[in-house]
Amino acid sequence: MLSYSVVGTGAIGGFYGGRLAHAGREVRFLLHSDYEFVKEHGLRVDSCDADFVLPQVDAYRSAADMPESDVVLVCLKTVRNHDVLPDLLRPLIHEGTTVVLIQNGIGLEEDLQKVFPGVGIVAGLAFICSAKAGPGHIRHQDFGSINLGNYSCPSERFGALLADLLDAGLKAAEVPYLEARWKKAVWNMPFNGMTVALNTSTDKLLNTPATRRLIYDQMMEVIGAARALGVSTLTSDFADLMMTTTDRMVPYSPSMKLDFDNRRPMEIEYLYTRPIAEARKAGFDMPKLAMLEAELRFIESHLNSD
Amino acid sequence: MLSYSVVGTGAIGGFYGGRLAHAGREVRFLLHSDYEFVKEHGLRVDSCDADFVLPQVDAYRSAADMPESDVVLVCLKTVRNHDVLPDLLRPLIHEGTTVVLIQNGIGLEEDLQKVFPGVGIVAGLAFICSAKAGPGHIRHQDFGSINLGNYSCPSERFGALLADLLDAGLKAAEVPYLEARWKKAVWNMPFNGMTVALNTSTDKLLNTPATRRLIYDQMMEVIGAARALGVSTLTSDFADLMMTTTDRMVPYSPSMKLDFDNRRPMEIEYLYTRPIAEARKAGFDMPKLAMLEAELRFIESHLNSD
Repeated sequence: MLSYSVVGTGAIGGFYGGRLAHAGREVRFLLHSDYEFVKEHGLRVDSCDADFVLPQVDAYRSAADMPESDVVLVCLKTVRNHDVLPDLLRPLIHEGTTVVLIQNGIGLEEDLQKVFPGVGIVAGLAFICSAKAGPGHIRHQDFGSINLGNYSCPSERFGALLADLLDAGLKAAEVPYLEARWKKAVWNMPFNGMTVALNTSTDKLLNTPATRRLIYDQMMEVIGAARALGVSTLTSDFADLMMTTTDRMVPYSPSMKLDFDNRRPMEIEYLYTRPIAEARKAGFDMPKLAMLEAELRFIESHLNSD
Repeated sequence: MLSYSVVGTGAIGGFYGGRLAHAGREVRFLLHSDYEFVKEHGLRVDSCDADFVLPQVDAYRSAADMPESDVVLVCLKTVRNHDVLPDLLRPLIHEGTTVVLIQNGIGLEEDLQKVFPGVGIVAGLAFICSAKAGPGHIRHQDFGSINLGNYSCPSERFGALLADLLDAGLKAAEVPYLEARWKKAVWNMPFNGMTVALNTSTDKLLNTPATRRLIYDQMMEVIGAARALGVSTLTSDFADLMMTTTDRMVPYSPSMKLDFDNRRPMEIEYLYTRPIAEARKAGFDMPKLAMLEAELRFIESHLNSD
């Protein structure tokens, strides 16, 4: 049976790790500010599927104290991938460990593989609305499926991981690696940045004709970039689907908007700079998302100075 | 000797009309809120060139009371061009009147000519930093030249107008019509909208690397559009010049930023929608300025509702 470590026990790591633990898997959780609370009170997940509580949590305050695991679920913000993630991972991995990057953006696996050439890496794309409601308390509002894109993991290990997630009652599916990453970007790139740039929410963007058109145009830029990179399965149908899906969602603040509202660093690098650069290498221009990137860079550099 | 009417005696109309009156021309000023004050105290212009005061001003409260003039300087915001301007102009024009639209944007002359097929129309592009400092009080901070583009005015009348402006000590020049309009748009389209979209000033946009590049890209979109419409004299050199000129300016709030700050309607139609549409007709796309237009539409529609 596979053992798991969760690095970053927030809205995402707490939910997926929690579901695995609730299904009987051995899951070790790395916590920072919530460590004392979770050690004492456990982890609580209020979920649109079914609420559950983990009264006993295998919680750690430092990665150095954690045993090696077969699977590491990385649920940190990507702003930590360069400066912090390698040191956190080192004690957790053995030669057969699979690292699942449940993070947004483009280019993450490539960068991590350079640091750990032997490790098997999987992209995890969570389609979920969930948020931290308080210490050790996660509120899962909507959706919850996870797409796995195999970057460099032996297929047997990948299959065992997928089976575990399905066994825990999660909607998990294998999607070709590049398609998995870019598919998520179709929603992420327009909505994360635009809710920050215009300081608003998804519903207002879609209910204003000019920005509804703009969001759609930006989705088509992502699809065009993906196609230029060889993801031929991604077509305008998916943009249409993302529009109507978002129409049906409750007004939602994407993770970058929450980071912005809470004066935390924004994931501009992997969500914008990198995909725009990858597309450009393939000869595809993303002018509206490049403009959004510039606006976000401006906002970030003046956020704390004004 | 030509007689003049100034419609819209603000930072622009007060300055150019004031200079003509100061040089001895007959100038009638249409005023609204400042009428009583100017009637009693006259008009005061603090200018980087040379301060002057017009103690006696030929001021009117209503266009219907004004005599016909040979030249009408229209210095209103373009948001009034459809609903108000035709009624204001009707009493002021005779069959030989020249209307000078000292306004920003693209397509203004075409629209006005449809309402007054016989009138001679001239585009006036003011390169000036000036602002209203108080009732009947204008502060002219920098620059001050005016480019005239002849849209439909007999050349003799155009020549007389140009001579009058030069005689009043103004830096005036004839520039081919389309070039005159689009040249001004090179500065206007990036800076007016971006200072609103990011709620900032020209200097911060230029001192942040990401937005400095974006502003330049947007200038190049305007130049590309102009060239697609046949203005072959406009090249990237002019974008370079506008960048360095703006670097040397004091931090400046463009007119749209002032409108935004004061919760007045913004000139989105003639400054963005129209030029973008004209360029598209010529097969040229302006993606970054089209995105800016969408952001401005969003900001405008939520400005008073949130």
